Amino acid sequence: MNEGATHRIAIVGTGNLASNLIHAFKNSSVKVEQVLSRSIENAKILAAFCNAEAIDNPRHLKRDLDLVILAIKDDALDDIYLKLFSSHTPLVHCSGSVDTAVLKKFDTYGVFYPLQTFSQQKIVDFSALTIFIESNKTSFTHLLEQIARTISNECVYANSDERKKLHIAAVFACNFSNSMYQIAEELCIKNGMKFEYLHPLILETAHKATLQSPKTAQTGPAIRGDIRIIKAHLTTLNFNKSIKHIYSSITNRISSLRIQE
Amino acid sequence: MNEGATHRIAIVGTGNLASNLIHAFKNSSVKVEQVLSRSIENAKILAAFCNAEAIDNPRHLKRDLDLVILAIKDDALDDIYLKLFSSHTPLVHCSGSVDTAVLKKFDTYGVFYPLQTFSQQKIVDFSALTIFIESNKTSFTHLLEQIARTISNECVYANSDERKKLHIAAVFACNFSNSMYQIAEELCIKNGMKFEYLHPLILETAHKATLQSPKTAQTGPAIRGDIRIIKAHLTTLNFNKSIKHIYSSITNRISSLRIQE
Repeated sequence: MNEGATHRIAIVGTGNLASNLIHAFKNSSVKVEQVLSRSIENAKILAAFCNAEAIDNPRHLKRDLDLVILAIKDDALDDIYLKLFSSHTPLVHCSGSVDTAVLKKFDTYGVFYPLQTFSQQKIVDFSALTIFIESNKTSFTHLLEQIARTISNECVYANSDERKKLHIAAVFACNFSNSMYQIAEELCIKNGMKFEYLHPLILETAHKATLQSPKTAQTGPAIRGDIRIIKAHLTTLNFNKSIKHIYSSITNRISSLRIQE
Repeated sequence: MNEGATHRIAIVGTGNLASNLIHAFKNSSVKVEQVLSRSIENAKILAAFCNAEAIDNPRHLKRDLDLVILAIKDDALDDIYLKLFSSHTPLVHCSGSVDTAVLKKFDTYGVFYPLQTFSQQKIVDFSALTIFIESNKTSFTHLLEQIARTISNECVYANSDERKKLHIAAVFACNFSNSMYQIAEELCIKNGMKFEYLHPLILETAHKATLQSPKTAQTGPAIRGDIRIIKAHLTTLNFNKSIKHIYSSITNRISSLRIQE
């Protein structure tokens, strides 16, 4: 698929996002030329997958690349590491919550933020997700959009403030819904029940949220105002203060939405 | 599919669960003979779907039915309504949180609890979910199991205490994860962004929880211990105390899991 590649890029990092990006670009017209990691061994594993060169030093990045994607953790986006890159490198980070200002020493910089949760175990379908881009130059914006559209159907420009607000919403939709699953799992384990019993419920609840507004989809004792059940649940949860506290705070919120109706 | 039906039943109710059960039994060897509702008009709509008789009075239930399924809301399971049924009716309710004791005036009673969230808009695949049963007689347990297995591959006996504990876990996995989606939607609306951007993230997060433990799948600022981002999020959430409070309580819990590692 990479014959007649229109853009040549490098990926920095070998984690969940980096490996998912490499899989996505493999089936696109974009050619990943280099994979850069502090660990040359890790870089080699991913580079072999896309027939790229593995490097462990930013100084060895080719000078004529169209784009270098920093697919690394937020806290790795620090001055010390970034100083190793030439200021002429056209560079993007992929973070939802980090300002573009961290890249301001570069001539050409921006953000390439695919709104999704990534793991190594499961390769994500990029075509269905939205990539949010930001950049310091109109021509670079066009380039980022072209590259994004080779792997995704949705590409949206968002400035750092908009992206940060989107990231908070994503924290609730992903990190916090996962925390609810984790508590459910803990309750199952405590009671000797298989968490697997809840799998169809988890999938259906998520699917429903994509078919109708979660506001109208809300079910359960809190939205019904079933005080008797809520009290019984709180008593059962006495064994764990933090779980009980979360139960109360979410129940109060759902109840307040009910009263607003 | 109902030729050579081995069991003849009635469904009480015309809500989300009732209509989903009728769809499920239509493709099974169980024949729904009657649909009972306080509203004869609603009963007729569902009865027509499965070629059953619509009735609005429990006294008109056939005497020789194998089972009557009360697919009605928890708070409708009250003495006044139940008194309308003959004590000889073999009866189950479908609630996760209601004790079998509410049915103790009946000769033969139990629970038939399909662990899932139901809506009219989307018909659920029963084969993948677990039906939890409970009963006051061994022979009735066998009957409930036989009927459950005509629509589902998983049927598990659970007493009222076990079922209630499972129901609390389900509240977290379903009602509370949906509340997280609702907050995410509210944040998107407030910031003029499409909630649809988050759909792939919601689906992937749920899917991931069925492939690996949510404990190991946890991502985000709280599990990373990213205090800077957490503080920025809390500042952004100052406009809504209840959302901010929920953000704090869940973040504290995720952080405490991190410290335990």
